[in-house]
Amino acid sequence: MDKLSLENPLFVTYVVAATIMILKAASMSWLTVVRMMQVKGGFRSPEDLKKTPLNPDPNPKQLEANERVDRIRRIHLNDLENLPFFLVAGFLFVMTGPSLLMAQLLLYGYVASRFLHFAAYLTARTHDTRATFWTIGSIMLVFMTCRTLVVALRHL
Amino acid sequence: MDKLSLENPLFVTYVVAATIMILKAASMSWLTVVRMMQVKGGFRSPEDLKKTPLNPDPNPKQLEANERVDRIRRIHLNDLENLPFFLVAGFLFVMTGPSLLMAQLLLYGYVASRFLHFAAYLTARTHDTRATFWTIGSIMLVFMTCRTLVVALRHL
Amino acid sequence: MDKLSLENPLFVTYVVAATIMILKAASMSWLTVVRMMQVKGGFRSPEDLKKTPLNPDPNPKQLEANERVDRIRRIHLNDLENLPFFLVAGFLFVMTGPSLLMAQLLLYGYVASRFLHFAAYLTARTHDTRATFWTIGSIMLVFMTCRTLVVALRHL
Repeated sequence: MDKLSLENPLFVTYVVAATIMILKAASMSWLTVVRMMQVKGGFRSPEDLKKTPLNPDPNPKQLEANERVDRIRRIHLNDLENLPFFLVAGFLFVMTGPSLLMAQLLLYGYVASRFLHFAAYLTARTHDTRATFWTIGSIMLVFMTCRTLVVALRHL
Repeated sequence: MDKLSLENPLFVTYVVAATIMILKAASMSWLTVVRMMQVKGGFRSPEDLKKTPLNPDPNPKQLEANERVDRIRRIHLNDLENLPFFLVAGFLFVMTGPSLLMAQLLLYGYVASRFLHFAAYLTARTHDTRATFWTIGSIMLVFMTCRTLVVALRHL
Repeated sequence: MDKLSLENPLFVTYVVAATIMILKAASMSWLTVVRMMQVKGGFRSPEDLKKTPLNPDPNPKQLEANERVDRIRRIHLNDLENLPFFLVAGFLFVMTGPSLLMAQLLLYGYVASRFLHFAAYLTARTHDTRATFWTIGSIMLVFMTCRTLVVALRHL
């Protein structure tokens, strides 16, 4: 069977997990926009102080760092450090033909870990809570990647 | 037919759009280098103040932020926030077998939106102009991703 | 033969190079954690100053920038600027059916260039040394991407 067919439940599992993670990352961009509009600040480019329909009353303070905006930027950066690698690692992992149950646990488990990390970060829980969720996801990612590498090395 | 064959026009469409976006992102690194050499500054690491053939006359001011360099860094960061997700979303989208016309409109349209965003950012157009081009691309990305997720969920 | 089978030596070459690069990127996250624990600082979020089992003795100075931590963050950012694009470019490159030798030279050569870049950056070698290794990798990436684009354009 074609590995990239939606008749292949391993590929469907990957596509569901991957698209949810892509939407999650894209949402961080939109959430940054929402917060910048709420606080009317947290901008980064000098030209953002020009008077426009979206910024009718510009003010030099709009270029200062704003914690409500920066919190989303930090969450976003954490996504950039993790999700692109998950997207490729998860794909290669399902291509090596693991059991469907293992793939579902790891891929959906990773997705869950990232939403818990997001919730902990957004609500400013302690570092330890946030780090726990990040660690769970990171270990799943490293496990999938190592297993894929080991399988590939056997075919070298 | 093999979905990953260059005889598959959907895959060819994806490969053309994806490689152009990869070259665009790589160009941002090179453009940062060019601008750092032009202004002889905008460096970030303490060791960049050591005297070398490429930096024969070091000066502590070279580690200060430089707007000409930082503008490219901001554009680059925007690419990092968007392109890796487009590269995976576009691939999965064409794997679900959309019509060729829809794939061409969305994938080439996304590429065009990113070049317009780049032009607006590089020349410091107003935030509203830049945001318009970013928004068009982001909506295309979210649309492709949602459609792919919906198709995959039907096969769960 | 299935292009995504581990019986395909081109795909195996890609999987080995890609998983090593993913593990390299994930290691940067862990190395940041290690250094933050060593220096008990370099944190970024206000809530990281709360007293927890992992931070029993909080101090406002923990939110100040720390060069030992920031060095790893800069290396990590350089990975984010390069590896996600390599992961997709390398995949599409092997899908276009280059010779196995060329694929091995470019993919393993890229991996080697990134480890040399890491070693030069970690030990604070001069900018020129670090830039040389980055340049070698970037040229390999651009070459693979251009070749893939040219092959795809012939099938448009």
